[in-house]
Amino acid sequence: MSTTTTVSIVYFSGSGHTTKLAEAVAKGASSIAGTAAKLIPLSGEHIAKGRYENEAVLTQLDASDAIIFGSPTYMGGPAAQFKAFADATGGKWFASAWRDKLAAGFTVSNSPSGDKLSTLQYLFALAMQHGMVWVGLGELPMQPNGTNRLGSFMGAMAQAGFDSPEIAPNAEDKATGEVLGRRVATLAARLRG
Amino acid sequence: MSTTTTVSIVYFSGSGHTTKLAEAVAKGASSIAGTAAKLIPLSGEHIAKGRYENEAVLTQLDASDAIIFGSPTYMGGPAAQFKAFADATGGKWFASAWRDKLAAGFTVSNSPSGDKLSTLQYLFALAMQHGMVWVGLGELPMQPNGTNRLGSFMGAMAQAGFDSPEIAPNAEDKATGEVLGRRVATLAARLRG
Amino acid sequence: MSTTTTVSIVYFSGSGHTTKLAEAVAKGASSIAGTAAKLIPLSGEHIAKGRYENEAVLTQLDASDAIIFGSPTYMGGPAAQFKAFADATGGKWFASAWRDKLAAGFTVSNSPSGDKLSTLQYLFALAMQHGMVWVGLGELPMQPNGTNRLGSFMGAMAQAGFDSPEIAPNAEDKATGEVLGRRVATLAARLRG
Amino acid sequence: MSTTTTVSIVYFSGSGHTTKLAEAVAKGASSIAGTAAKLIPLSGEHIAKGRYENEAVLTQLDASDAIIFGSPTYMGGPAAQFKAFADATGGKWFASAWRDKLAAGFTVSNSPSGDKLSTLQYLFALAMQHGMVWVGLGELPMQPNGTNRLGSFMGAMAQAGFDSPEIAPNAEDKATGEVLGRRVATLAARLRG
Repeated sequence: MSTTTTVSIVYFSGSGHTTKLAEAVAKGASSIAGTAAKLIPLSGEHIAKGRYENEAVLTQLDASDAIIFGSPTYMGGPAAQFKAFADATGGKWFASAWRDKLAAGFTVSNSPSGDKLSTLQYLFALAMQHGMVWVGLGELPMQPNGTNRLGSFMGAMAQAGFDSPEIAPNAEDKATGEVLGRRVATLAARLRG
Repeated sequence: MSTTTTVSIVYFSGSGHTTKLAEAVAKGASSIAGTAAKLIPLSGEHIAKGRYENEAVLTQLDASDAIIFGSPTYMGGPAAQFKAFADATGGKWFASAWRDKLAAGFTVSNSPSGDKLSTLQYLFALAMQHGMVWVGLGELPMQPNGTNRLGSFMGAMAQAGFDSPEIAPNAEDKATGEVLGRRVATLAARLRG
Repeated sequence: MSTTTTVSIVYFSGSGHTTKLAEAVAKGASSIAGTAAKLIPLSGEHIAKGRYENEAVLTQLDASDAIIFGSPTYMGGPAAQFKAFADATGGKWFASAWRDKLAAGFTVSNSPSGDKLSTLQYLFALAMQHGMVWVGLGELPMQPNGTNRLGSFMGAMAQAGFDSPEIAPNAEDKATGEVLGRRVATLAARLRG
Repeated sequence: MSTTTTVSIVYFSGSGHTTKLAEAVAKGASSIAGTAAKLIPLSGEHIAKGRYENEAVLTQLDASDAIIFGSPTYMGGPAAQFKAFADATGGKWFASAWRDKLAAGFTVSNSPSGDKLSTLQYLFALAMQHGMVWVGLGELPMQPNGTNRLGSFMGAMAQAGFDSPEIAPNAEDKATGEVLGRRVATLAARLRG
């Protein structure tokens, strides 16, 4: 078995904010010695008639110790593009291919609450379908340094407001993403033994 | 204002089971005098790169008193094709175009529980984003005639098992769909005054 | 039938913040002509060994057109004291006594998100068990006047932070509670016909 | 550190069905070499005015590698008695005392679906508040031997129907509880390293 812990971050981003949060999560994971963090953006180009088709992404996830799911919150839930990917994992589900892998999640929306919890709940439901093991943020809310300022526990939340991805999510929310990345990488290494 | 109450049933069906349940819901709604029940199937043909584009469907929903959402439960949530439709309602959301309309939902999956509640919770979240008013099944579980045999309250659930749409959902689950249709049509008429 | 629409607000408050939000909801409901808004605080004094016993409250709710449920969010869900009340409504459930009444909900927690959505989802689940009809906030997020600043749709959310009930929830969150009260009173009158 | 993995099963049971499922979970956990499974029933006797007070139980949980939460589903969520216990863990929350422990959950209700998912979602929310790591059932639905016949993924579900605890949950649902117990004990040992 490889001595490196592979943490894959598979996400969809519509306007770029979720990409920024994904990068922060990857930065956090990479900061843990022995971790390879891989960013895997999902593209609408691979969705035909509502179905996601890109075997290479699924194979890459097979080879991961942990998979962190990310999506903006659109209309109270994960983006359709992310859901198309989720539906395309049915073969992995049937084969129990991702059983016992670590899973985690993150999401972005405009307002502080903004039904982001609903998206994290769905990402959790997806992971449970696969028999994965879920890791949340693991941090108390409103830390002095600003991490977890929104008060999220199931995963990392960030707020986009009405700002461009150049400035949103803000530094605190990106630091929150790093917390999640570090936590997943640390626990994935422990679980591999 | 029209003297007819229009109940639209907008749904995606992958293998045909959800279509059968949608037809049962429509049958129930139609049985209430003064109700026009309209079946609006969503097609993957209208989804390009993960985005649903069919203005005619949205316009048809604008003209409805009640909208009943339906989707199979795939990987612990609504089908991506349904979610693509949901995401395409963002313009209606911003305009509060569906505010105060009645909403309801139904879903189908293979097993008795099968995370169907997660799908109904999402359909509810979508309706709340739109400021709609939600109507559940309104019936106690395991009725003597078999309706609500699965024990669902937020909406109608049906089980597909491993059977073809010719025989699944079974008669009890289809009767449950009719209960939902009748209830929505009755309350939509009352709410119109 | 009475010409007055009765909107009951049944809530538990531990530290007083939820009482403030409940009063704002009542103020909003009362502002609609023909509405009697009744505040019904739940007391730990009526809970013996985890079971709520106060038949007078249940009878008062029987006589209401709409019931608005309120609770702080404790450990990711409604307060146990509220849940004890909810469990005590089993007799009303079995008799379908609250079927077709309007329902709505509100909650308070320290941080902006803080799993408040989880509490609103539970209040919704309770209402659906009873066959009630659910009304959410019905307002887009982050309004110019500050209402719905947290971005909530299923009901009203308010943030307590670390401040006393004298100053928290803040004016915007209390105005959000008023929005919910007005909306429920308006729709309850419409539904009565 | 002890060479034994301690799996605590903390649960409330009203009519005895949840006790039967808890015992099955304990049996499954005990079947894994090196595991001590401890059944910790919650009693209404320890709830005063809606607040659970029993420091011994909290201390016992401190000393556990994994905590499995169990409750019947009452009125669409966990029993108030379980919630009183959950609310009493606020001190452990503030101290992050249970951070990184494994968590899992199980529930019982009368009907096949019966909003049991809502209870499991709450148990998950509680675990995430504590920074625990969640393990679901990890099994595909409707296995040939009858385990996971209801189709649950976030945890173990069992159906009580209208039968006494002598015969309900049935053998399949109890075997499902054993699956959960074995899985938690196995992963807890791995995570301890």
